[in-house]
Order: sequence, then C-alpha cells, then structure tokens
Amino acid sequence: METITSPKNDHIKLAKKLTVKKNQKDYDRYLLEGPHEVRDALAAGVQPDRLYVTSKYTQDKDFRPYYNRTTEITSEVAAHLSSTSTTQGVFAVLPLPHTKLPDPLHGSFLLLDGIQDPGNVGTMVRTADAAGVQTVVLGKQTADAFSPKVLRAMQGSQFHVNVVSEDLVKLVPKLQRAGVPVYGTELNDQAKPYASIAKTDNFALIMGNEGNGMRPELLARTDVNIYIPMRGNAESLNVGVATGVVLFHIMG
Amino acid sequence: METITSPKNDHIKLAKKLTVKKNQKDYDRYLLEGPHEVRDALAAGVQPDRLYVTSKYTQDKDFRPYYNRTTEITSEVAAHLSSTSTTQGVFAVLPLPHTKLPDPLHGSFLLLDGIQDPGNVGTMVRTADAAGVQTVVLGKQTADAFSPKVLRAMQGSQFHVNVVSEDLVKLVPKLQRAGVPVYGTELNDQAKPYASIAKTDNFALIMGNEGNGMRPELLARTDVNIYIPMRGNAESLNVGVATGVVLFHIMG
Repeated sequence: METITSPKNDHIKLAKKLTVKKNQKDYDRYLLEGPHEVRDALAAGVQPDRLYVTSKYTQDKDFRPYYNRTTEITSEVAAHLSSTSTTQGVFAVLPLPHTKLPDPLHGSFLLLDGIQDPGNVGTMVRTADAAGVQTVVLGKQTADAFSPKVLRAMQGSQFHVNVVSEDLVKLVPKLQRAGVPVYGTELNDQAKPYASIAKTDNFALIMGNEGNGMRPELLARTDVNIYIPMRGNAESLNVGVATGVVLFHIMG
Repeated sequence: METITSPKNDHIKLAKKLTVKKNQKDYDRYLLEGPHEVRDALAAGVQPDRLYVTSKYTQDKDFRPYYNRTTEITSEVAAHLSSTSTTQGVFAVLPLPHTKLPDPLHGSFLLLDGIQDPGNVGTMVRTADAAGVQTVVLGKQTADAFSPKVLRAMQGSQFHVNVVSEDLVKLVPKLQRAGVPVYGTELNDQAKPYASIAKTDNFALIMGNEGNGMRPELLARTDVNIYIPMRGNAESLNVGVATGVVLFHIMG
C-alpha cells in the first residue's frame, strides 16, 4: 500500500479542499473524518473515492474490503487533514448525497429554520435519528450539512436519516396538503405544552433559530404551536436539547 | 467615567487572566462575558469587582447602579477580552462562588461524572435549570465550570441553580443514606426505560462521560439504572440532549 508522508501531496491538498462548501459543490464530493463515521458510510453502501488511514487502521476489517482505494497516511498528514486537535486518523472522500424528499410526503420530519451553530445542526440530525425521524430538512440560513463541525456532531446519522435542503416556506403547505400536520415551536398565546400533543409518526416539527426563533411567515402557517414548560429560571433550552425533549415525547 | 483604550492596560491584563482556572483559584475571581449573563449575576445579588462595558452599555439601566465600579472599554479592548469572535462588549469580574450542598441532603440533583466537553457541561447546567433541578454536582474529570466555553453554554444558569464540585464516589452513598434515590444512566441488562420511572422531585441523576459512560464504581452503587430506548440507528444521544429527555420526564 502506498504511504503519503507529506501534507503537500496533491491528493491530500484536494482532500483538505473538500472540507469547504464551495469546493464540495464543485467536485460533488466531501471529506468525512472518523472511524465510526466512515464505517457508517460504508455500512450504508456509500462508495468512497478514497480512504486515507494511519497505520493503525490499514488492517481494519471494515476498511480491508476497500484495500485498493485505501492510502496510508502518516500522523502528520492526518493532523493536517483533521478538523480536531485529536484526530483518530481515518478519512474518506465521499460523493455528496443527492437525497430527495419522500414521495408521497408522509412520515416524520424535522425542519430546521435558520439553525446557525454547526454543532446544533449536527446534534439535531443525530437526535432525530435516535428518535426515529425519517427526514431532516435544512431550510435556508441553516448551517451547511457537510462542514467538519456539523459532520462531527452528526456522528454518522446522515447515513441513517434522509437529510435534504428545501425552502421551508414552500415545503410547509405541501406537507399540509399531503396530510402531515406541522408543529411550530414558539412560546406565544396560542402555544400548547408539548406533553399535550398526542404521540404520532406522521408530523413535521419546525425548530427555529437559536436567538430569534422561527421566521414569522413559517409560524403563521403551522397547524399547532407547542412549547416546553420550564420550572426553573433558564430563559430557554439549547435548541438541540429542546428537539430531543419534544421528539422523544411525540415519537416515544 | 474612565475609558480604557489599550489591551495592555493592567486592569485588562488581569481581567483576561481571570479566564484561566489557575488564576481564577489564585485570585478567587473569574471573568464573565455577555450582557444577559452579567444581568443574571447582578439580579442574583452577586457583587462585581468591576464591570467593563463598551459605550453602547454605559447608560444601560441594569448596569447604572454599578456606575462607580464600571469602566468603559473600546471595542478593541472588548475583542481582546472576549472568548468569541462576535463579542457584545459586556464583562464582569466576579467572586468565585463557594456553593455548598444542601443540608440536609434532599431535592433534585444532577451529577456529572467526567463530562469533558465544556459545551456539554454548560448545556447540562442550563438544562437542569430549565427542568427545575436544584443542585448540579461536577465530579472529578468534569470540565471546570468557569472556563469561557462552559460559561457561554450555561447562559447564566449558574446563578439559578447550585453548582458544586464534589467527589461523586463519596457523595452517592451520602445521598442514599439521606433517602435520595440515585439513578444511573447506562445501557445494560438491569437498565429500565426512562419512561417507566415515576415522576419525582427527590432524586439524583448521574450522567457519564461522552465516550465511556459512567465509571464502574459509580454504576455499582446506583439504585436504578435507566436508559433511553432509541428507534433509529444512532448509537447514542448527545449527553446534553439525553439529560434533557430524562430530566423533563422525571420532573415534568
């Protein structure tokens, strides 16, 4: 097996470029980091262009079937490719998925309306996966799904749930016409406590921006608006935590 | 009002030092950032040594009562003091709290066993606050509560709940002798689904390390061990999200 020892190697330079959105679009590829995440990708049938692994992983049983697409890298090269200070030394160059909404529109949906923190976006996809949600829709102004920080927080959940990007203002009426009730999350006079919502597998839950909440044009279109009653003095919950509390109630 | 225009000013150098644990211990002080957080501190009756604010906040009605302890700073100085790239320009030098466990031991407790990510520690304190938990106990190997990242994620919740540091291996038997049942969180043969736990305001919930879970010596001492059933393919939830799902069930 070939070993790359320099971060200036052309293949490594390209792989590093694939952590940036513009290059990801140009090449229709992204760089995924982490043994767990790459195993999830392979288990989901994603065909990697290339695996880059440090010596510890060259004989790994999950990566061995891809031997002819695997290149060994030194720990110096791994540190260069990594977005963390403690890399495990496993990377894959993967095709960007071209996921579509389910047709017909039915099932469970989590809609992200302008979630800006990459860690929150990733945690919400991971939480949706754990709760059993089928489709996560990233609206406009929501952090890009393939940045290193989002990928790290998703922990491979993008291979278990559909993650699609759509204009939520157009999508919400389509969901409603298809018989999928749309739940907003904003504390106002019409809001109902989340525990009063019946358990269901056919719904769309909208979570809004960390500071400003949902956009008014979306809030105006929801079927029901729900909130989480708080007993303490915190003004709000982290948006990922709130997503977990509501989803595990609705789907639990 | 005096205005400090240089990051090299001695007061500013000291304030910046108070973002680091060792210096915090030496001076028994820490630096808190953010208008919301500083307002929460003042509302809780904490007496600041000093407020440093940019011109936008010098006439703020919540800070005006502390006029004789307030120093105006330029945006350059604010950027130097800040732990974020988009500071709002409000800082306070505050005494470290010397919070103690409730006596007698009774009520609701969240125990953090080796939580390493500062954002997770802060989110867990904020979540405990929102759920109505009275005391959060940071065990050994848990990230320090007064680092900038933890403070940012707590969003002032340290002024609403007791946050104390204790050896959990010693604390757990004391809680049990005082009649507080201790719930562990680890998926094993004895674990019960969280939804089967009766709602209560008298309990201690232990959340374990992000990668390794609870230490075995703690797990062996718990009264009940609970888990969150997952329908999807995620291997686990983010520890902050899991804390929210369990706490809002138990206290909801």
